[in-house]
Amino acid sequence: MISPEIALKLILKNTPKLDNEFIDILEARGRTLARDIYSDMDIPPFNKSAMDGFACRSNDLKKANVILDIIEDIPAGFFSKKIIKNGQCARIMTGACLPKAADTVVRVEDTKFIDKFRVKILKTAKKNENLCQKAEDIKKNQLVLTKGIILRPQEIGILASCGIKKVPVIKKPKIAIISTGDELVDVTQIPKNGQIRDSNSYSLFSQVEKLGILAKKFSIVKDKPNAIKKIIKKTLKYNIVLISGGVSVGKYDYTKDVLKKMHVKFIFEKIAIRPGMPTAFGIKNKTLIFGLAGNPVSTFVIFEVFVKPAIYKLMNYKFSEKEILAKLEIDVKKKSGRTHYLPADFKVMRNNFWVRPVRFHGSADLFSLTNANSLIIIPKNAYWVKKGSFIKVVLLN
Amino acid sequence: MISPEIALKLILKNTPKLDNEFIDILEARGRTLARDIYSDMDIPPFNKSAMDGFACRSNDLKKANVILDIIEDIPAGFFSKKIIKNGQCARIMTGACLPKAADTVVRVEDTKFIDKFRVKILKTAKKNENLCQKAEDIKKNQLVLTKGIILRPQEIGILASCGIKKVPVIKKPKIAIISTGDELVDVTQIPKNGQIRDSNSYSLFSQVEKLGILAKKFSIVKDKPNAIKKIIKKTLKYNIVLISGGVSVGKYDYTKDVLKKMHVKFIFEKIAIRPGMPTAFGIKNKTLIFGLAGNPVSTFVIFEVFVKPAIYKLMNYKFSEKEILAKLEIDVKKKSGRTHYLPADFKVMRNNFWVRPVRFHGSADLFSLTNANSLIIIPKNAYWVKKGSFIKVVLLN
Repeated sequence: MISPEIALKLILKNTPKLDNEFIDILEARGRTLARDIYSDMDIPPFNKSAMDGFACRSNDLKKANVILDIIEDIPAGFFSKKIIKNGQCARIMTGACLPKAADTVVRVEDTKFIDKFRVKILKTAKKNENLCQKAEDIKKNQLVLTKGIILRPQEIGILASCGIKKVPVIKKPKIAIISTGDELVDVTQIPKNGQIRDSNSYSLFSQVEKLGILAKKFSIVKDKPNAIKKIIKKTLKYNIVLISGGVSVGKYDYTKDVLKKMHVKFIFEKIAIRPGMPTAFGIKNKTLIFGLAGNPVSTFVIFEVFVKPAIYKLMNYKFSEKEILAKLEIDVKKKSGRTHYLPADFKVMRNNFWVRPVRFHGSADLFSLTNANSLIIIPKNAYWVKKGSFIKVVLLN
Repeated sequence: MISPEIALKLILKNTPKLDNEFIDILEARGRTLARDIYSDMDIPPFNKSAMDGFACRSNDLKKANVILDIIEDIPAGFFSKKIIKNGQCARIMTGACLPKAADTVVRVEDTKFIDKFRVKILKTAKKNENLCQKAEDIKKNQLVLTKGIILRPQEIGILASCGIKKVPVIKKPKIAIISTGDELVDVTQIPKNGQIRDSNSYSLFSQVEKLGILAKKFSIVKDKPNAIKKIIKKTLKYNIVLISGGVSVGKYDYTKDVLKKMHVKFIFEKIAIRPGMPTAFGIKNKTLIFGLAGNPVSTFVIFEVFVKPAIYKLMNYKFSEKEILAKLEIDVKKKSGRTHYLPADFKVMRNNFWVRPVRFHGSADLFSLTNANSLIIIPKNAYWVKKGSFIKVVLLN
């Protein structure tokens, strides 16, 4: 059996980056920018008043209480063709373009009207006060956003300023979710004897949706080779297929057999991990296929630890490999010689990271995850990790 | 002028909690649960095999290498009516219901077929091995999810298990976004002399969208009282109106006047903050109206610091008031007697939080925010905060 570290490396090695597409700027938040973006103009494109006040010549204002003639009124959006001469000024609004020869702005609070045509400037002023100089934020043709970044609201604002309505981004992956199992019924049904409700396809859908991707959730598939084959055929146009159940060693675990007959190439069929040991990973053409163990916690953990990084790779997210280490609040013991991922409660206290496992009794215990905001990783060869030790943590929120 | 702390308190005091609604389980991730949820059944609803193997009576397996008769085959989803007698067993699959009188499961790996009807059990076994006991995860009528929590993928899984297809949640707020200004043109246009492109309504839309809410972004509104009145009338059915521009002291800043004439009650019209001092907050019926300064960084910061908490309150999010403190990497100086929110770069190093302000030259400098993942808060009365001091941080990512 391969280790979780090797499994992740093999998954990422077989995961391609998706193609580019152009999308509307209002849909681009959270997406990976596919090309460098240059500004088509200076920002601001002119010397701009930062205040409501008067545009003046600074050499008129070496003394306080100078009276100036008001030659015009400049609202935002207006371009004045007049030139401010000595002894003159223009009333100007925040965001408006300074008239020629004006080189400073005095705030309205620092002035006093004499009459409709004259204003007293109560203070002295130097050049460039209360104005934003042309191109001080961004210069024309300047590189403003580098390809590969994930677009946040502030970058969306920059794109708008630079006139990019259609944004070049990496495509989102198409993801298919399938639950298999003769024991499963849907959420709307009352399980009969021997049956339970399917929860995996709902939690998986939500894990994917949290990443901003609407997956296709298929109806429950019976443990029958033909039914499995039929559904898999439909999903081979997707980038990722998540199929839970039917990957173990039972008599009715057909999933892997069916996939092999369909020429899916399996990269691995087991991981030395708990929960989620029977996890299989295969590819056909460019479709990544994850066979997930049917237990809810297995499915949940395998998604967080293996599927999410694959989605990030497809979308060209530079996801941080940086590990978080937290101090264990209690001793933790384990049995098997596999790496364990245990549901845990992580917190920041006195500027330190602390973590403790939550009550958990096995890979079917989805309820334990409602108390967890993280997973702690107990290495393969550790059987007793002492309170106060530093331990690796995967954050869930 | 009121402090940012008082401003936030006044906003939250005037912000109601929204009503409940029922939505489909696949749309419920990220929403606030509006009612307590109880399980309609035991989970698991029966003693369930946790492995592929053989369901046996443990008192038959006090010695290794016992040979048992296989009386039937129990796939998942099947309910056996047979009783296992001494010397008998049933082949059983993971997830299947144990037959009567069987009290332990031996993994298939620990057995050897003698022939089609008999199996040798290679090891001893105790009661309750490799099985999940009825109701061990959740008991019928147990409280499983408490109202007020924000639904994560694991809770969506629990809802599915408990048969909740239509989920009671708090409604999402309806949010209207308006940019005003004669100087503004849309992203698709090339600004003429004196004009700039509107970025605020795009960055605000994305800040809202990041919270899972699709806002209504209106077209740019001119600095004309009638135009402003017309658009405000349209938005009074929204829960929040974000209107940027026109709230300052300029001759053409009509927004507040128009709102007052429309009987909007202003709670405050200024905050002692930088950037964003001219921020106004008013209410009409149940609509919250934020008048935002037109500068891009002001708008961005005011959203993060004041509008986001109001959205959380509407959705009944128990947002953590816990402050993050980080060590300053360099000295920071400021001038005005207002609280400053400066774009900053936050990181975790050697298990400590560190922060440093990014290059920033004023509230129009949206570009500075592309280097920022946080804001540092420099208190009103601090003028020189020394390197190594702990300072409050607002995280943006």
